[in-house]
Amino acid sequence: MGTGVGRAAGAGRAGTVSRLLIEYDGTEFSGWARQPGLRTVQGELERALNVVLRRDGVSLTVAGRTDAGVHALGQVASYIGEPARPDSLNALLPYDVAVLACVAAPPGFDARRDATSRAYIYRVLTRRSRSAFERRRALHWPYPLDIDALRGCAALVAGEHDFTAFTPTETDHVRFERIVFSASWMAPGEDLLEFRIEADAFMRSMIRVLVGTMLEVGGGRRSVEAFGELLEGRPRAQAGATAAPHGLHFVGAGYGGERVL
Amino acid sequence: MGTGVGRAAGAGRAGTVSRLLIEYDGTEFSGWARQPGLRTVQGELERALNVVLRRDGVSLTVAGRTDAGVHALGQVASYIGEPARPDSLNALLPYDVAVLACVAAPPGFDARRDATSRAYIYRVLTRRSRSAFERRRALHWPYPLDIDALRGCAALVAGEHDFTAFTPTETDHVRFERIVFSASWMAPGEDLLEFRIEADAFMRSMIRVLVGTMLEVGGGRRSVEAFGELLEGRPRAQAGATAAPHGLHFVGAGYGGERVL
Repeated sequence: MGTGVGRAAGAGRAGTVSRLLIEYDGTEFSGWARQPGLRTVQGELERALNVVLRRDGVSLTVAGRTDAGVHALGQVASYIGEPARPDSLNALLPYDVAVLACVAAPPGFDARRDATSRAYIYRVLTRRSRSAFERRRALHWPYPLDIDALRGCAALVAGEHDFTAFTPTETDHVRFERIVFSASWMAPGEDLLEFRIEADAFMRSMIRVLVGTMLEVGGGRRSVEAFGELLEGRPRAQAGATAAPHGLHFVGAGYGGERVL
Repeated sequence: MGTGVGRAAGAGRAGTVSRLLIEYDGTEFSGWARQPGLRTVQGELERALNVVLRRDGVSLTVAGRTDAGVHALGQVASYIGEPARPDSLNALLPYDVAVLACVAAPPGFDARRDATSRAYIYRVLTRRSRSAFERRRALHWPYPLDIDALRGCAALVAGEHDFTAFTPTETDHVRFERIVFSASWMAPGEDLLEFRIEADAFMRSMIRVLVGTMLEVGGGRRSVEAFGELLEGRPRAQAGATAAPHGLHFVGAGYGGERVL
């Protein structure tokens, strides 16, 4: 991806850029983004980096800003500075966030601006009984679901669409078109469904509203055709509910055209 | 399996016997067995059953009594009384235990005495970085492991042996022979190893000491042959450390000769 003049100049001044691969259980975090007085993933990571690098003011950019309760298996972040040892960072981080790798990146690398794709998985537990193990990581949906209808919706989601219907009306986005490279419903295990989606970028709550609306289609309360019409820039009020955050997992980011899913 | 006269008479007096299928995350429990003043799986289940059945003194027997921190995916328990609706029980149970089924069982059924096999899985995370997701459910073992040596040990464990070396010396067992129907090391995913074992019955800590000792073999500190000699009734002091409880999962019990794994 292109490197803007300002960014390249900044990286040049400060030297090396480093790239982090991160995993976190979002249950007890107020999301990724640093906020005063709240426990956030960015806040915990920057605190650990400042200690290990003996600096102050390390600032992270991230491929996928996640909301409170959303998890990450392969989150990518970057900062201007030398790499730190993952073992040293993990010794300082709380139990629910772990650094898997920290390496030198190409000059000017920015995990957010350079990401050409982001991939997420939304997990749904479909059995009747709730689960002692999946309670933090899958939506419990013990209602009849037509998997063919879900798959029909996913097939419509792929491609370039105006996703205005799938993000809050008070959002500050200026462009509502996104290019979805792939979207599918998989059944990786008994009683478990996964919605997997990869796109150039996502708007706030977009996947959760897509899932909430598709569950209405899967339950027979809305047709696949009606769902498809929402992808033409309809207002938010016409789409369904926002599915709970704890089923959503950021699984990876692609750079330079590579795909994750 | 045979039904003793005393038990059959008891079941006859009280009527129906019911069989429960249960899942629990053992992290925050002081084990299965009811103990005054402690949070136990048996205690929570009996409390919920007493409420739903409008009784007092429901008493459970269980296929696999698990220690503190040990999990269960397919635990089987029974009690003398009518079945209760799983949804009703789950509404009264804490988040880390769930009833998957509750059905009428044959007269005189006893989940502990009638079980002819028990199966467990011990999970080991072998990557260098700890995990935000597996911390409660897999032993983190970021050291070199010779998988062939582990598999050589597992092959020796299968069969009938004297497992004196693999249970605490202060145990109250009177017979130390057990019949292991199957034992194997599997690699179900990247960075994950699972020791799967099924036997007629297990002694206290037996699987955890087997795993702790096999990890020493896998790390080159003990030979497969030396491990094999421990299966001939050697004293506890000759075996290795007891692996942590959080990697261990009770996965199921077989009745009437059926196998789980």
